Amino acid sequence: MLQKPEAAELKVIAFDVFGTVVDWHGGIAAEAERMVPGVDGSAFALAWRAGYQPAMRGVMQRIAEGEGGFTLLDELHRSILETVLRDFSITHLDAAQKRELNCAWHRLPAWPDAVAGLTRLKSKYIICSLSNGNIGLLTEMAKNAGLPWDCVLSAEVFKAYKPDPRTYLGVAAVFDTTPGQVMLAAAHHDDLAAARACGLRTGYIERPHEFGPGQSKDVSPQPDNTLHARDIGALADLLGC
Amino acid sequence: MLQKPEAAELKVIAFDVFGTVVDWHGGIAAEAERMVPGVDGSAFALAWRAGYQPAMRGVMQRIAEGEGGFTLLDELHRSILETVLRDFSITHLDAAQKRELNCAWHRLPAWPDAVAGLTRLKSKYIICSLSNGNIGLLTEMAKNAGLPWDCVLSAEVFKAYKPDPRTYLGVAAVFDTTPGQVMLAAAHHDDLAAARACGLRTGYIERPHEFGPGQSKDVSPQPDNTLHARDIGALADLLGC
Repeated sequence: MLQKPEAAELKVIAFDVFGTVVDWHGGIAAEAERMVPGVDGSAFALAWRAGYQPAMRGVMQRIAEGEGGFTLLDELHRSILETVLRDFSITHLDAAQKRELNCAWHRLPAWPDAVAGLTRLKSKYIICSLSNGNIGLLTEMAKNAGLPWDCVLSAEVFKAYKPDPRTYLGVAAVFDTTPGQVMLAAAHHDDLAAARACGLRTGYIERPHEFGPGQSKDVSPQPDNTLHARDIGALADLLGC
Repeated sequence: MLQKPEAAELKVIAFDVFGTVVDWHGGIAAEAERMVPGVDGSAFALAWRAGYQPAMRGVMQRIAEGEGGFTLLDELHRSILETVLRDFSITHLDAAQKRELNCAWHRLPAWPDAVAGLTRLKSKYIICSLSNGNIGLLTEMAKNAGLPWDCVLSAEVFKAYKPDPRTYLGVAAVFDTTPGQVMLAAAHHDDLAAARACGLRTGYIERPHEFGPGQSKDVSPQPDNTLHARDIGALADLLGC
């Protein structure tokens, strides 16, 4: 079934969202500083995000052991938030305020190039999200930030989390294409590697300041990716949109 | 958990699609006449659509008996198409042409009021589809017709078909609302009745010519519905959008 990427016409571009399309660091830092005056917003954002991978591994292990079910990212974020608040000695938020802060993930700002780049790509391809975020979170984020998805796809649709092959292959199944007719665009090489192993094309998006303007990450090209783009506008350039 | 409709702020409007937002009769009739010159397009469309309810009942019965799984509407349409072609003595279509004809459901035209009405509603509410159509079908339809969904929801997301309560309650769960904060908008009273039984608000949309310009259906108001609207623009009027 798998085809070489160049053998089939590209039809769908699925985007990782957190870090790739929206600026979680900037968005969470700003909302934390708004709701908790005096807090180090950047440190708060980094701590909250750092809790994600261990929490996700915990969920996947519980599912594998038959002791847990699919869990929405909103619920994981809410659980991690309790730990972060404790670590930062923030004790004055009531339940409604914690809920409001947790919904900061629904209001993350798009990177400056994202809306225009996605709009260009949408003229030629089906564009969708492919995120471990839940559908409601991703939909409200798109509405707030103006992300012009043709369709919100999520781990919640496939009842499996990236990097599970069911997510990448699920996109191809939804649109009745071969895996090679789908490209995953992401700012994370591990996500792209897992998609590539399923036969998808891959587009790396540089986001050197994903972890904050004062930090940087290695965004050098890796030869296994089909495309390497500075941002989503550059991806549209490369794809002739 | 259920609240009286008037007790909670409306947040989400979920739309039935076939007949309510798009004109399946006109779209299928035109595509049939394009691909099979001389055919009675209206009769062909009515026959294809008439196969839907029995096919869906068959799928639901097989699922209930543990002998079948979730089936995409594209596959049901393809299966019904074989019967219709046989009944109409159409024998010259090859597999690629049958596939193209089956995808006519992806290219159905919106009713003239739909895009403008949905765009107005989107300014105030989350708007999504809630159809037994599969995600790929609904996404391509939206792209072709310019339907501005915030999110494509489908039986495929909930692995259950309308009128199963999991579909209506699933919309509320996706958006973390009460059932009463969701309205189903549909041109079919049975769909609305099932949603109402789950605690959703209901908006009836008149589509007197759903079955063709030469036919009509009873579109008189039923008092159990929250709202009754001539079309989607009128629904936007009623909701102050």
